[in-house]
Amino acid sequence: MESLLYEQLADRLIDHIEEGVYPVGSRLPSVRALAKSEQVSIATVTSAYSILEERGWAEPRPKSGYFVKRTAIEPLSMPKKSRAKTSPRAVTVAELAMAIQRGAAASRGVVFSAAIPDLEFPIAEVVKRNFTRLSRYSSSFGNGYETPEGLLELRLQIARRAIDAGVHISPDALITTMGAQNAISHALRALTTAGDIVAVESPCYFGLLQMIEGFGLKAIEIPTDPVTGISVDALTLALQRWPIKAILTIPAFTNPLGCIIPMEKKRILIQLAQRYDIPIIEDDIYGDLQFEGRRSKALKSIDPDGRVLWCSSVSKTMDPHLRVGWIAPGRYYDEVLQQKFVSEISSPTLPQVVTAEIMKKGLYDRHLRHARASYHQRYMRLLELAREHFPESMRVSSAKGGLVAWFEMPRSVDATELYYICREEDIHIAPGELFSVSGLYQNCFRLSFSNEWTPEREQAIAFIGRILKKMT
Amino acid sequence: MESLLYEQLADRLIDHIEEGVYPVGSRLPSVRALAKSEQVSIATVTSAYSILEERGWAEPRPKSGYFVKRTAIEPLSMPKKSRAKTSPRAVTVAELAMAIQRGAAASRGVVFSAAIPDLEFPIAEVVKRNFTRLSRYSSSFGNGYETPEGLLELRLQIARRAIDAGVHISPDALITTMGAQNAISHALRALTTAGDIVAVESPCYFGLLQMIEGFGLKAIEIPTDPVTGISVDALTLALQRWPIKAILTIPAFTNPLGCIIPMEKKRILIQLAQRYDIPIIEDDIYGDLQFEGRRSKALKSIDPDGRVLWCSSVSKTMDPHLRVGWIAPGRYYDEVLQQKFVSEISSPTLPQVVTAEIMKKGLYDRHLRHARASYHQRYMRLLELAREHFPESMRVSSAKGGLVAWFEMPRSVDATELYYICREEDIHIAPGELFSVSGLYQNCFRLSFSNEWTPEREQAIAFIGRILKKMT
Repeated sequence: MESLLYEQLADRLIDHIEEGVYPVGSRLPSVRALAKSEQVSIATVTSAYSILEERGWAEPRPKSGYFVKRTAIEPLSMPKKSRAKTSPRAVTVAELAMAIQRGAAASRGVVFSAAIPDLEFPIAEVVKRNFTRLSRYSSSFGNGYETPEGLLELRLQIARRAIDAGVHISPDALITTMGAQNAISHALRALTTAGDIVAVESPCYFGLLQMIEGFGLKAIEIPTDPVTGISVDALTLALQRWPIKAILTIPAFTNPLGCIIPMEKKRILIQLAQRYDIPIIEDDIYGDLQFEGRRSKALKSIDPDGRVLWCSSVSKTMDPHLRVGWIAPGRYYDEVLQQKFVSEISSPTLPQVVTAEIMKKGLYDRHLRHARASYHQRYMRLLELAREHFPESMRVSSAKGGLVAWFEMPRSVDATELYYICREEDIHIAPGELFSVSGLYQNCFRLSFSNEWTPEREQAIAFIGRILKKMT
Repeated sequence: MESLLYEQLADRLIDHIEEGVYPVGSRLPSVRALAKSEQVSIATVTSAYSILEERGWAEPRPKSGYFVKRTAIEPLSMPKKSRAKTSPRAVTVAELAMAIQRGAAASRGVVFSAAIPDLEFPIAEVVKRNFTRLSRYSSSFGNGYETPEGLLELRLQIARRAIDAGVHISPDALITTMGAQNAISHALRALTTAGDIVAVESPCYFGLLQMIEGFGLKAIEIPTDPVTGISVDALTLALQRWPIKAILTIPAFTNPLGCIIPMEKKRILIQLAQRYDIPIIEDDIYGDLQFEGRRSKALKSIDPDGRVLWCSSVSKTMDPHLRVGWIAPGRYYDEVLQQKFVSEISSPTLPQVVTAEIMKKGLYDRHLRHARASYHQRYMRLLELAREHFPESMRVSSAKGGLVAWFEMPRSVDATELYYICREEDIHIAPGELFSVSGLYQNCFRLSFSNEWTPEREQAIAFIGRILKKMT
């Protein structure tokens, strides 16, 4: 499927703005003039200008038309809105993804490729201490297998903390899992069978694309705006054209773009899901890692009829080794519980006890305050370093939270080649190729900024910059 | 599909023997006479007599024909060979199974329903101590996620111990999992898609039937002999008639029958799998719990072309809370690893470290020697109690290892009703209905004998006996 006429027009206008054809502050062509010169309808031009406005490229002035606005992030440019091909394709990123995962796990060098929290934070010591302390009581953990829905004490703590995300939920509506990937896998299995189509953001976190491939499903990539997230228009069109079985989205700090879907758009997403009577799987693992302001509300918080399956974990916020996550599957509770039960019977008890205890004592929330501020600083430092070392023509996402940033380079850059060159120096990045099933992001890459900046890490950025400059 | 003519004839002859038509020691009709009276071929009668011989009901005497033999277990009778209907059916046992699981988990009463090891054994204390001790070093467990294939040290220990089961394997051919159920779920997902048919033993452990249902697969129940396991003839016929995608078997101490498939039959199973070019998933969780003699060899030990996926765990031998299992997927390694990776990314590290350490120090093997002897004694005590309290017409399986025994009652007994009556007294059994997708075992139930016999547990058996006597 080609992108819509007005999206194409909007993209062309943005290109013109970037190229300086329309400088900041200048008046854009009138709707009527543009319709004539581009040989499109008035409605198409109006829609294109709305997109420019939505993305912060233009602003309307009463009775004067549209004017070019300063872009939101200065002086860095945002990645262009993705031009994902919205037709289902088989996923083929698995091998590269696993090689990258392995490389990063084995490396003693500089790892920017994995979205892993900083394990040097004091909370790591708290986790360890609680394991040591609570393992002494492990004989009181029941007669063998934990219940399939998971430890009640942990579900209570998750329900209590969910209020932060606007989610008011009973512990009985929650199921604990082995991390969010595991939660999403149970959700997908409960909702789909092989051959079904799932709508995902584009670019999309490769772990989700791999899961879709592994389950014999097809991914349809929905173009995603680096500021406002998934394109509602493209999603609507995809829903009209394809028998999509589920929408899989990361509304808070979309991996890799780092953006938040605005509340208004969240409401539209819910309405769309209702109209087409399909579920939304919400991956909210980064939700607690918002840099500034109040934590944004989850999609689940405005889910009137239980069609949102809210998935999260402590893997990004505390420690992936815990393998503790959860799902609030709404109306799909029974099906998801069955998938968990038949796949694993139950999750290990001790990590659930440890996580519940740390949440209960408020240590998790205290840690989050510290972590949010640190990650924000580290992100800002990454931007500084990128500005210093990367080619001027780069664009970088404006992350509002999470652990990763997305870089877009000129077309001449081959990020997969960059990945291999860096790997020789034991520097690990996540090439853009991973984030698409249709080879869209060959000139992009994702860097994690969760670790403290050391001279070694800063030099690694400089190294990447030197290679990039050779490529451009 | 009806059972074969000679199987039907064998069943009728066994019925006659049980009813006393042919008393122990008496001569059975000559092959020629029986062929005439039953209007079947000589070959059919010969095959039927072979079955009687195989199952210990009759013995040939040179030039005199077949004579009725004392049955193997005295004075208890074995369950009849199952008469599973060998046509694929949807599985519908999930709800009852989960209710029973929950009931057992929440109970402070007497639980015979779950195959859970005795957590009062000293090894439980060893597990706890090692958790406490090793959690202190958890910050040295790597930079976040364990590798998908699992902790190398654990794979080394599993490979070392596998030699006991005749399995000579490299650690690189092993993948650790969250218990054997999880291993089997990855195997099934790697090998099948919704709608496919999987051959299982009948009666079959309900956890496997539920998994098959949960994945949208169909189970074909292969009649299973209480002494020699799955019927090769019925399996052959099923393979001829149906596009079976995998054979799922528990060769060592088939759950619930407790029998071992003899080596000779294992070879035939491998040949069958080769002829029809399908994989065999071997669930070997009870293999280390053989009561007497040398541990029987796994199917995997005679797997010439990597078509056996050997699955096991420490959940039955040590502690289910660990959620540590493994799979040696043979030629399906890549597909199984992908399923694990996309479903969970990795398993928790600490339980793997703990399990590896306990195995390495020889504490696991020492524990097994103790556990085997204890479980054997407890099984013998269960037989004594059943003999004392249950109706004389009962039959009971001759378990050679494992944690469970299978009881067959006269047709008038409704074991699901028995389950509900017992539950009122906080006594929990596993009714036969669970072990079939076609309602075959309404008059059967499974009892676990893993716990030490206390007056309370013994009285519970007496209670079950009183209800059974009312029902017969």
